[in-house]
Amino acid sequence: MAGHLLDKGHRLTVWSRTPEKSNPLAAKGAAVASSLEELAHSCDIVFLCVTRNEDVEQCVRGLQPGAKPGFLVVDHSTVSPVLARAMHGFLSEHGANFLDAPITGGSMGALKGQLTIFCGGEQADFDRAAPVMEAYAKRAELVGGPGLGQTMKLANQIAVGGALLALCESLAFAKKAGLDLAQTRELLSTGAAGSWAFENYGPKILAEDWSPGFSVTNQRKDFAYTLEAARLLDSAVPGTALVDRLLSRLEEEGHSDWTTAALYQTLVESGFESWT
Amino acid sequence: MAGHLLDKGHRLTVWSRTPEKSNPLAAKGAAVASSLEELAHSCDIVFLCVTRNEDVEQCVRGLQPGAKPGFLVVDHSTVSPVLARAMHGFLSEHGANFLDAPITGGSMGALKGQLTIFCGGEQADFDRAAPVMEAYAKRAELVGGPGLGQTMKLANQIAVGGALLALCESLAFAKKAGLDLAQTRELLSTGAAGSWAFENYGPKILAEDWSPGFSVTNQRKDFAYTLEAARLLDSAVPGTALVDRLLSRLEEEGHSDWTTAALYQTLVESGFESWT
Repeated sequence: MAGHLLDKGHRLTVWSRTPEKSNPLAAKGAAVASSLEELAHSCDIVFLCVTRNEDVEQCVRGLQPGAKPGFLVVDHSTVSPVLARAMHGFLSEHGANFLDAPITGGSMGALKGQLTIFCGGEQADFDRAAPVMEAYAKRAELVGGPGLGQTMKLANQIAVGGALLALCESLAFAKKAGLDLAQTRELLSTGAAGSWAFENYGPKILAEDWSPGFSVTNQRKDFAYTLEAARLLDSAVPGTALVDRLLSRLEEEGHSDWTTAALYQTLVESGFESWT
Repeated sequence: MAGHLLDKGHRLTVWSRTPEKSNPLAAKGAAVASSLEELAHSCDIVFLCVTRNEDVEQCVRGLQPGAKPGFLVVDHSTVSPVLARAMHGFLSEHGANFLDAPITGGSMGALKGQLTIFCGGEQADFDRAAPVMEAYAKRAELVGGPGLGQTMKLANQIAVGGALLALCESLAFAKKAGLDLAQTRELLSTGAAGSWAFENYGPKILAEDWSPGFSVTNQRKDFAYTLEAARLLDSAVPGTALVDRLLSRLEEEGHSDWTTAALYQTLVESGFESWT
């Protein structure tokens, strides 16, 4: 994402919790800040992409003392809507601005500059960030006020989890029934069962290739925020809760870094009564 | 389907449990048999499309006494693989043949002659039926021996159920969270959550239009056969079991004939703890 900003001619200063990660960008012409405060002081907009609530909070609190008037943090991490609203509030109290802006499209979308970005916050902040995000997004939309960008991302993860379950459960059943898996995947892809997951994860399942893609740990992190948000909204998400329980088995077995399509293997190894 | 056979120039004799249903076909030139036995006697191949195990068994037992040597029944109903294997065995004992050949593509696929057909049985029987089925199918494949056509259809229904859950659960969550539903459906359709269900059922959910499409009752009939097959295979299908429980609520509320996308409404009316 930062590389695309450089390629499009933006002036870029970078900072990473793991300093050596900045080297390739420095070699391409990016300045490197020595602290979050220095980074904030040298930038109009800081784009943040970390993992969990606590990472976002630590970064935002580290940036704030260096903020100049009109300073804007755009957070591309997937975290809790509650934390996003707290960060909006915190920066706003200090005269700065925050846009929650989780991304979808995976590492391939980032490499190709084809991410989709769900933004929550003020229209004026979105309007400032949008022309910059164009460098790595095929699409960025303001979906509502503070926290609603994260909420849209969680709705997306609910649907992604359900599509994963649909794929893995049907192929595990086909496997046990003695159907040809390649034929099953191909036939089911073309009709009412068709999905992005069938097209993209299906081949990994046929190859039983669980090498890292979107990991079990990252999916469960997103589900933890989803289940928290659903509880606060009193919204029923039984499918998400089920997929989370299935993935927890992979974690218990030491496969946290496997791609989520390994849920297929959990189902193949389970009996009819196991999860009902 | 029968209309397409006439349109393609096949000689057609029809019989229906509801005699007046034959009238439009008779008006187009089809002969009408007065009994199943007479139908079997006047045909080389009979294509059957009814609803449940007991309907298929009744029809096959009614046809058998009229069967000439080489007589073939092609069953387009979605029923249990166990029943399909029993019908193969029964006709085979009487010198006749059976192909289980459930269809997918819905009433629209039938009207347009664009169905997909999963066939289980003998290669020779498939080879006889395939050129005729071309009249109403975009695709027909032999997927294995007796019963495996039905098994493939059940694998398809597992994936269809999961895709329905993914769609309804994500949109119900979005609704409760105050997101714009049209924007949510559209944004989620374009990425890793995308599916046939999002494209085709999404608009019905936005309109809260539960008018008959694929009905709750028919989906639960398919799930009953799926759960029976999964139990026999000791295969874990917790997603299917969950969707079946959710749809049972619609039946209890008197909405058996609603389209399955009404599962969205069940979720909107449920609290976080309801189904977990």
